[in-house]
Amino acid sequence: MDYKKFVEEQLAHIKQTVGAAKAINALSGGVDSSLVTVLGHRALGEQLQTVFIDNALMREGEPQRVVEIFAHMDIAVMLVDARQEFLSALAGLTDPEQKRQAITDTFYSKVFSRLVKESGAMFLLHGTILTDIEETVAGIKRQHNILAQLGIDTEQAYGYSVIEPLKSLRKDDVREVAKLLKLPAELSQRIPFPGPALAARIVGEVTPERLETVRTATAIVEEELADSGAFQYLAVLLNDCATGIRDNKREFGQIIVVRCIESTDARTATVTPLPWDKLDRISRQITQIDGVNRCLYDLTPKPPATIEYV
Amino acid sequence: MDYKKFVEEQLAHIKQTVGAAKAINALSGGVDSSLVTVLGHRALGEQLQTVFIDNALMREGEPQRVVEIFAHMDIAVMLVDARQEFLSALAGLTDPEQKRQAITDTFYSKVFSRLVKESGAMFLLHGTILTDIEETVAGIKRQHNILAQLGIDTEQAYGYSVIEPLKSLRKDDVREVAKLLKLPAELSQRIPFPGPALAARIVGEVTPERLETVRTATAIVEEELADSGAFQYLAVLLNDCATGIRDNKREFGQIIVVRCIESTDARTATVTPLPWDKLDRISRQITQIDGVNRCLYDLTPKPPATIEYV
Repeated sequence: MDYKKFVEEQLAHIKQTVGAAKAINALSGGVDSSLVTVLGHRALGEQLQTVFIDNALMREGEPQRVVEIFAHMDIAVMLVDARQEFLSALAGLTDPEQKRQAITDTFYSKVFSRLVKESGAMFLLHGTILTDIEETVAGIKRQHNILAQLGIDTEQAYGYSVIEPLKSLRKDDVREVAKLLKLPAELSQRIPFPGPALAARIVGEVTPERLETVRTATAIVEEELADSGAFQYLAVLLNDCATGIRDNKREFGQIIVVRCIESTDARTATVTPLPWDKLDRISRQITQIDGVNRCLYDLTPKPPATIEYV
Repeated sequence: MDYKKFVEEQLAHIKQTVGAAKAINALSGGVDSSLVTVLGHRALGEQLQTVFIDNALMREGEPQRVVEIFAHMDIAVMLVDARQEFLSALAGLTDPEQKRQAITDTFYSKVFSRLVKESGAMFLLHGTILTDIEETVAGIKRQHNILAQLGIDTEQAYGYSVIEPLKSLRKDDVREVAKLLKLPAELSQRIPFPGPALAARIVGEVTPERLETVRTATAIVEEELADSGAFQYLAVLLNDCATGIRDNKREFGQIIVVRCIESTDARTATVTPLPWDKLDRISRQITQIDGVNRCLYDLTPKPPATIEYV
């Protein structure tokens, strides 16, 4: 694939489509939305407003760090604090589909649709990649009809339009284009992070306390495996508890699963055979997290498991 | 430790204590109760009645196999089918302590107490080992007051008595004595199996279907790891489900945890660094069990985790 040509074509397409109008995009810090942000600002400059929505489900320090990285590239990102809206929507939910739906609804129908209206934008840039479309068609991922999700009736609202510059790329292509456009390695090599963020890594109810537990475990896993060269590595908090011993007394503790996989495009994945001393270091740190007394390693390829848990 | 002298002393002690009375013991097939059975029959011959209670929680073919092994040693074991009593007692229970209590109550207060009364025995031989006593004192295991558990008031019931020939031994001593008494390796080297049997390896409700799932996983793990030389290896069925892909569709599947540990006496344990091709073989077989789409490996030493989950 000719990545340089791809970039030129997309820049021209975005400019021509948007014309003199305003556009908006939501940045998550993942490589897909980061690349769309950079492409969009190259094509549109100040006509594009980029927002980062803090949904309370991000990793440690992530919202501030993403805004800072883009500031270094002279791209202003608007940080929107929507933590309370997401936590309220998730309270009491344990069913995985209901949790995903609550996050999607809060994002599109409430927070992002409000921002779109306030911005006056008629164009939305979105980081859909080929794998997303394929998995949606196959029934593995949910529908990506963004205008409908925003509550915008495309027939009535003439002019509203979605631009998906990456929809012909797979993950490895996205990284190559990101490198070509000189995105810092922290973004172009950023390990994939799911749409529902840490909520995809909490089996059972998402609460501030449980988010804190999985956030701490995630920081441990990401630090220990940063040099692993793996495609993706993550920590999951299960809902089950298991027996353990603390200070010579029986206790029921929480369980963290560590997952580390090899893949090129996330469609299939194999398990990384990590060194045992590394696994031991991770397990010892994770069982020092308050309330956690087990650490497990996921041995399952995709398929039959998915990469995330929820 | 002088194991030969230990055996002579225990045989003499059992003979002298029981005299011309009848004794009874419950055999589980584990090395502790197997050794007590052999010691007891050497000391008491036909005066000792040995029962094996099928509680529906045993491994594949285990009750029949244990009876058969002892028949080869000319020790008759009475196989008691109490499956329905245990399954009824466990129905609807998810709390780990309530599950353990239901099994203990059904075993002692219902099934075994009935058998003791029917047998006319005044002496009970029991395979308590030193680690059991230490962990009971430390509050890690539950109380081992067997007469009270049988509903026998020791003050009123003059003559009832418990004999615990192994109470000065740890697990490694038990195995040495078992070898000395020529117990077949299948018994003397048998990996430890918990009192609550497969119920200790089911997080959540114990049902016939869930027992079948963990029983199948246990058979896979025990076959694959028989040559591992590890102290203990087991499979656990979690209550949580996770997302997976089957025939290109999203599905929620069950999760099996594999645990394999090194230990000398079960008081502490470290995780066995198994070869990755072995773990991969186990994972592939386990995710072929109906309804299971994840397989995890437990990375936690004891402490802070225990060996079993419930």
